[in-house]
Amino acid sequence: MNGAHALIRTLAGCGVDTCFMNPGTSEMHFVSALDSVPEMRGVLALFEGVATGAADGYARMAGRPAAVLLHLGPGLGNGLANLHNARKGKVPIVNIVGDHATYHKRFNAQLESDIDTVARNVSSWVRWALRSDDLGADGADAVEAAMGPPGQVATLIVPADVSWLDGGRVAAPRALGTRSPVADALIADVAALLGSGESCALLVGGAALRKRGLVAASRVANATRAKLLCETFPARLERGAGLPPVERLAYLGEFAMMQLDGIKHLVLVDAKAPVSFFAYPGKPSDLVPDGCTVHLLARDTDDAVGALEALANATGAATDAASAQAAVRPDRPTGPLTAESACQAIGALLPDGAIVSDEGNTTSALFGPMFTAGAPPHDWLCLTGGAIGQGLPVATGAALACPDRTVVCLESDGSALYTIQSLWTQAREGLNVITVLFNNRSYAVLNMELSRVGAQAGGPKARNMLDLHRPDLDFVQLATGLGVPATRATTAEEFCAQFARAIAAPGPALIEAVVPSLL
Amino acid sequence: MNGAHALIRTLAGCGVDTCFMNPGTSEMHFVSALDSVPEMRGVLALFEGVATGAADGYARMAGRPAAVLLHLGPGLGNGLANLHNARKGKVPIVNIVGDHATYHKRFNAQLESDIDTVARNVSSWVRWALRSDDLGADGADAVEAAMGPPGQVATLIVPADVSWLDGGRVAAPRALGTRSPVADALIADVAALLGSGESCALLVGGAALRKRGLVAASRVANATRAKLLCETFPARLERGAGLPPVERLAYLGEFAMMQLDGIKHLVLVDAKAPVSFFAYPGKPSDLVPDGCTVHLLARDTDDAVGALEALANATGAATDAASAQAAVRPDRPTGPLTAESACQAIGALLPDGAIVSDEGNTTSALFGPMFTAGAPPHDWLCLTGGAIGQGLPVATGAALACPDRTVVCLESDGSALYTIQSLWTQAREGLNVITVLFNNRSYAVLNMELSRVGAQAGGPKARNMLDLHRPDLDFVQLATGLGVPATRATTAEEFCAQFARAIAAPGPALIEAVVPSLL
Repeated sequence: MNGAHALIRTLAGCGVDTCFMNPGTSEMHFVSALDSVPEMRGVLALFEGVATGAADGYARMAGRPAAVLLHLGPGLGNGLANLHNARKGKVPIVNIVGDHATYHKRFNAQLESDIDTVARNVSSWVRWALRSDDLGADGADAVEAAMGPPGQVATLIVPADVSWLDGGRVAAPRALGTRSPVADALIADVAALLGSGESCALLVGGAALRKRGLVAASRVANATRAKLLCETFPARLERGAGLPPVERLAYLGEFAMMQLDGIKHLVLVDAKAPVSFFAYPGKPSDLVPDGCTVHLLARDTDDAVGALEALANATGAATDAASAQAAVRPDRPTGPLTAESACQAIGALLPDGAIVSDEGNTTSALFGPMFTAGAPPHDWLCLTGGAIGQGLPVATGAALACPDRTVVCLESDGSALYTIQSLWTQAREGLNVITVLFNNRSYAVLNMELSRVGAQAGGPKARNMLDLHRPDLDFVQLATGLGVPATRATTAEEFCAQFARAIAAPGPALIEAVVPSLL
Repeated sequence: MNGAHALIRTLAGCGVDTCFMNPGTSEMHFVSALDSVPEMRGVLALFEGVATGAADGYARMAGRPAAVLLHLGPGLGNGLANLHNARKGKVPIVNIVGDHATYHKRFNAQLESDIDTVARNVSSWVRWALRSDDLGADGADAVEAAMGPPGQVATLIVPADVSWLDGGRVAAPRALGTRSPVADALIADVAALLGSGESCALLVGGAALRKRGLVAASRVANATRAKLLCETFPARLERGAGLPPVERLAYLGEFAMMQLDGIKHLVLVDAKAPVSFFAYPGKPSDLVPDGCTVHLLARDTDDAVGALEALANATGAATDAASAQAAVRPDRPTGPLTAESACQAIGALLPDGAIVSDEGNTTSALFGPMFTAGAPPHDWLCLTGGAIGQGLPVATGAALACPDRTVVCLESDGSALYTIQSLWTQAREGLNVITVLFNNRSYAVLNMELSRVGAQAGGPKARNMLDLHRPDLDFVQLATGLGVPATRATTAEEFCAQFARAIAAPGPALIEAVVPSLL
């Protein structure tokens, strides 16, 4: 058994059964070994950013990592932006980067580069595999590292000869790390704080945004009148009818400061203290209000859900004290198609158990969550690290993890173009992803940012750098060229009909929603 | 004057008058300042790999760097593969990466990452700009560093507040570095060697592959019977009717070893000793034959052209002793469209002064150079660093640098998908780029490599990872969706007619050549 074979067998034994890849010559033995391990599924991506983003989406929904197989330093570079997003979202990924054979590296061939330097920017754990007989064990260690807690990108760099030489040995799965319990004394302190009569808020994030955590947080909020907020860009938020609603902290610092206005105690639960997404001249980076004290209930390595449940009990909240979102949907819209009416249609039609990958930026940020609040229970996956080009790949990976659910990708024109190749993988794998492509023909968010940073925005050259006209992008043709059936909607009625049809049909679809820019 | 304004004015004063960009919020002051510097042209790319590759193509043809403007660490990541290629090709690029404001970094906002770590992998020169009043000087230093010799990627990281604060000062252009002369004694030694009667070869690369260097090298070869070879993947090779022909060292090590067989002395002229592109089990990495001595005539920092001219004189070569390629073109092909007949058509029709960006890999590697050898003089630009996804962006940048010349991009299906967004920039800027898209519906080179590395190739899962069927990519739709007129050719006659029409018409065009895989 060669090293690659042992690595794949080990990964499969550790529960890593899907590998998103864009391989090259140095990874050919890994590719070849796929056929000898039936448990491992290989999924081809046409661009590495698709592979890394899909692994992110897969892990968010499966609760365990996928593997990624990349080709040397440039392949890692192409995948870096979505690994950055996974890092910020604390999502586990086993990131395997092939390299030249150990004895070949000193010849400085064309593709030679400093892989581990680049990998360290996104990986909490980086290892060079140096011996075929250790490669299985390296793989098991990578899975353990990826699983954390918290989840992280674990990068294993595998020289070609370490893959191809014999002597590979399958390694047993490692015992996975567990989240630390939060001390009773801390829970009592926070309970006392919440009962003090001062204005308090809970800011909940990470692992606490699934149903159990939200129920506990809602019990606390209702029992103590604390404000319940969640982080701005959750990796995975469970929401919809019957689930406790939670207010997301706004992307724009001005709005976030309004949400936090008057709060005297901010309790963090697997979340970080709020900061502005970008710096703006004359505006604060730190969004914690003056006079507000920040308290840390649970770190990202702690058992945040257990802590919330203990806190709920400590505050005397009844077990049924959590709020439940009412099942209310908007009517199907009619008339002109806008970001608002498109999101209204999605709210009217979203199927039970949907997964929403949200990278609509300006178009869906407000209306998407608003109109779907009372839709049947669903998961909402956000752009965790700010590196656009995540929405389509995350939708792809989520659909592979959950083949029986419908994935809706809210995507904007500018962001879509970074990883548009995702559509081909969706077509090849027959994934149930409906991409709603909001085409407003501009980097709308940048037109807003241009004035927010105080830059003089008037000039035609500057405007031209933020404008996606000339030529207009035709996403129906792009999707069709990549094998995904696509339609264009220009009225709300057309959009409703196309969206309903896409839900009913198996496999991927794209709807280009031509909408006016909000900004 | 703010820092950004001073930076752009300084760059323009240093001869850097084109900036390829994919900006974000932290670069808005740079974007805004474009309108105050009429000399600076901003060119928008929809993906950072397009911007970095276009800067590469621009500099190869203009002989001076373009600037690139990228958005934080993830933007740099997306641009990294083509910066790798530029580094390997020794092409100058002024790589500007925006960052969070200095005071904002400690808050670890979503887009925070370790930019300089990633930049060091591709940049010989990295600087953090820390003060607005120094930013002009930082820019001038970056241009000097980029120009080398040899050319290199110089990365300037610019925090947002350093851009937006006042106090910017325009800096004067620096004196550029010069290439070192090669010592007379070394030239005499090499001349003696070449006259020794032993079997010798010149391996020429880099800056010596323009007309002057080739004429000198050809004089040497003809006077001494030395074999004349050039590096496998030149950044820019001048060739065609009237120019000295030069044999390129083959990509496949087996063929390169045949080319070098029996050579006793290999003289390197701005080239490195030949090594295998990848490692293969049981095959050598070092391709220098046993018993062959390697001699270094000129480093990449030396005046290689001057050294070749001195060497020609020292060997007694007449000034008119260089070979000249005869002006011979193939007939227009008829019948089935294949990689061979498509390249024959290109050879029959290539216009005078064309620029060929060659990333056809398996399809055009052999036939492209063969059929165009006697075409009117043209430049041939290769994939310098092995990171595919370079061909379309390099064509884009070359067309911007040389608006009066026709650029022909030989592109393969797999490689095209990494940076397909280039087509939109070609359409927006009205560039004269004809993309010949060889669609063989596979990663053909990997099918070859799978067996070359000795991997057992039989399994359907492995084959599936190298196959671009299911679904077939439709490049006519993709190009049209990105604003570039496109046609599909399935016979040689159709291809000839479409290629001739594309040459005659201004602006970009794409021809999808559906061809059988050679492998």
